[in-house]
Amino acid sequence: MKYYKGKMMNMNTLDKFPKGFKTSGVRCGIKQKGNDMALIYCDKLCSCAGVFTTNAFKAASVIHNIEKLNDNPYAKAIIVNSGNANACTGKMGLQNVEDICKTTAKILKIEPDQVLNASTGIIGVQLDMDKIKNGINLCVNQLKENSWEATASAIMTTDTIEKIYSVESIINEKAVRIGGICKGAGMICPNMATMLCFIVTDADIKPELLEQSLKEAVESSFNSLSVDGDMSTNDSVLILANGESNSKISKNDMSYNQFTELLTCLCIELAKKIAKDGEGATKFIEINVMDTDTKENAKRIALSIANSALVKTALFGEDPNWGRILCAAGKAGVEIMPEKVSLKFGDILTVKNGEPISNVIDDLKKVMIEKEIHIYLNIGSGNESAKVFTCDMSYEYVKINAEYHT
Amino acid sequence: MKYYKGKMMNMNTLDKFPKGFKTSGVRCGIKQKGNDMALIYCDKLCSCAGVFTTNAFKAASVIHNIEKLNDNPYAKAIIVNSGNANACTGKMGLQNVEDICKTTAKILKIEPDQVLNASTGIIGVQLDMDKIKNGINLCVNQLKENSWEATASAIMTTDTIEKIYSVESIINEKAVRIGGICKGAGMICPNMATMLCFIVTDADIKPELLEQSLKEAVESSFNSLSVDGDMSTNDSVLILANGESNSKISKNDMSYNQFTELLTCLCIELAKKIAKDGEGATKFIEINVMDTDTKENAKRIALSIANSALVKTALFGEDPNWGRILCAAGKAGVEIMPEKVSLKFGDILTVKNGEPISNVIDDLKKVMIEKEIHIYLNIGSGNESAKVFTCDMSYEYVKINAEYHT
Repeated sequence: MKYYKGKMMNMNTLDKFPKGFKTSGVRCGIKQKGNDMALIYCDKLCSCAGVFTTNAFKAASVIHNIEKLNDNPYAKAIIVNSGNANACTGKMGLQNVEDICKTTAKILKIEPDQVLNASTGIIGVQLDMDKIKNGINLCVNQLKENSWEATASAIMTTDTIEKIYSVESIINEKAVRIGGICKGAGMICPNMATMLCFIVTDADIKPELLEQSLKEAVESSFNSLSVDGDMSTNDSVLILANGESNSKISKNDMSYNQFTELLTCLCIELAKKIAKDGEGATKFIEINVMDTDTKENAKRIALSIANSALVKTALFGEDPNWGRILCAAGKAGVEIMPEKVSLKFGDILTVKNGEPISNVIDDLKKVMIEKEIHIYLNIGSGNESAKVFTCDMSYEYVKINAEYHT
Repeated sequence: MKYYKGKMMNMNTLDKFPKGFKTSGVRCGIKQKGNDMALIYCDKLCSCAGVFTTNAFKAASVIHNIEKLNDNPYAKAIIVNSGNANACTGKMGLQNVEDICKTTAKILKIEPDQVLNASTGIIGVQLDMDKIKNGINLCVNQLKENSWEATASAIMTTDTIEKIYSVESIINEKAVRIGGICKGAGMICPNMATMLCFIVTDADIKPELLEQSLKEAVESSFNSLSVDGDMSTNDSVLILANGESNSKISKNDMSYNQFTELLTCLCIELAKKIAKDGEGATKFIEINVMDTDTKENAKRIALSIANSALVKTALFGEDPNWGRILCAAGKAGVEIMPEKVSLKFGDILTVKNGEPISNVIDDLKKVMIEKEIHIYLNIGSGNESAKVFTCDMSYEYVKINAEYHT
């Protein structure tokens, strides 16, 4: 993955959101406090694509969106609630999604088929449709440009801060903008609670190409967030493209690669924000696995480390217990020759060709107290690599999840 | 798995250990306190078998034992230390194992080839061989019958109690006894720290048959402890059979099945003790997944639930957040039809054919406060099932693992 640095013009969080999208974030009373309903809307019909959880128990809204995008990959609105995932809610859950889309469409004076829906929160409880319908009304009434902060706040559950990012680049000699908001995750790993991400762009791009680009971007960002196949019932990344930039994205020239690099960059920055705000997280951890035979194996090893509770608690304890890293790598189901493996924490070489380096504990302790730790594991058996993002596991993680009550 | 209930005569923990084995547990100063070196010894050459971790970074003693048993599956002694895993210790680690076996053999006046070795504790640190050799001397000097408690205490790391069990049954009209000690596990799951188990029996059984029987027994016990492939660098189950019962175990009659059921029963009881003493555990959890197409899929789903930090913290919080169970099941990578799935906590039906049952939260809360919780997930797509054992995840788990320092 090469970042699209050359032509990246600005990486401020809010400056570079594309024009033409109105949004709102309101409180309708699903959560105990805070905004809990959000709307993203564009007057113009947008190309639309999504990447969804692979969990067998897909939330009602996810089932709806997958069918909708298969039938007709264009949309004008995304309506979202937090506080209730509308997952494992059977037939009534699906009916409620239909009802939400119809209600939203009616008030916006658009077609129900032009509305996407997403939810996050508790699983197994039916939505309070009176509150939801009131929320939809409020959302439509408060739609405006430049209200991404309120919108981002309304999709939060246990997140402590809004997660917003936008980027801009010149593609086809025209400025193309991409902006996104997301909400984090229980703890992201070993199970993501729910990860939602909504992205808007002014690129002019066909839905099929948009989907392909989104899949590539998600692979090295949200799917490298120590989750991968391990997704929750609701995880979704949705993107709307309104074409306002007049920059046409095509596979016949460089524009597709340029757009995908820009989108990937946005997704990586949003994914990092999720890891940094993981439940109870005190440290951001980047795990680099290098010199494997395949990219898939590098990622499998990196995720095995990122998902290890023993590794994550050691990192929280600032304990240079590097053996747990190798142990987690060794259980990934990938063939590894221990005598070829080297391990670094930041700049500190800890294992070289399978042999532990002596007298590094004091140096390691200095790395372990940092707020951001980079781990480099060299497998010594090829030329492929992968990078994943995660966080440590603290007392607070257990507290948040033991007390996140029904 | 049918338990061998019919002819099971006694299930006390210490009463039914077989004769002919002497053991000891001593302190040689590897751990900060407590016994840290153990020896199991039989004058007679025993049939021997082992099941070992599949981790790519196998500890030096595991590499040694696998090679030794391939060459010559008979032994007289097992020498064990706790406090240092001798894992990720390169060539010196392997030399130290050779040295330990030679030293033990010399003092016991047996062949080095008749000694097995095991270790548990911190990874990546070389053994202090002066302490170890002193420990070997002490162990040999203190060998005696009926000292399984001291022996079990010497293999403990973060365990809070010794884990001992013995069983007896009539096979071929003769009493056959099997006894075992084990040590638990970081938290067993999602990564086992180290699980060690040493079993002795007076059955008369050939090494190949003993290995086959042990593998069967481990599959529904230690490998159903929310670990499976996810083993640490050191995990080992070793068994010695001295033949003193004169009950010959053979595949030509019922004796093999009888012996394997007895061994499985012992292993399940020891595995349950590990789950109940999981680091920081406040609850013992049994997860039953039923009516799947294959046994493997049932186990995969059950382990996915047992390994979920979100499930385990909810159980600690006594939160009837049953959606997390379905969510964890749904990410197991097994095809599931949500509309066929039913879920029970104890006797309380929570989901029936994919539809949540209303008004059960108060009943569920009563189940959640129990110290032992049984979960039944019916997939409704076949006739196979699996059962796994685990524990909840508490603040204490994080504390123990953040503070288990190098």
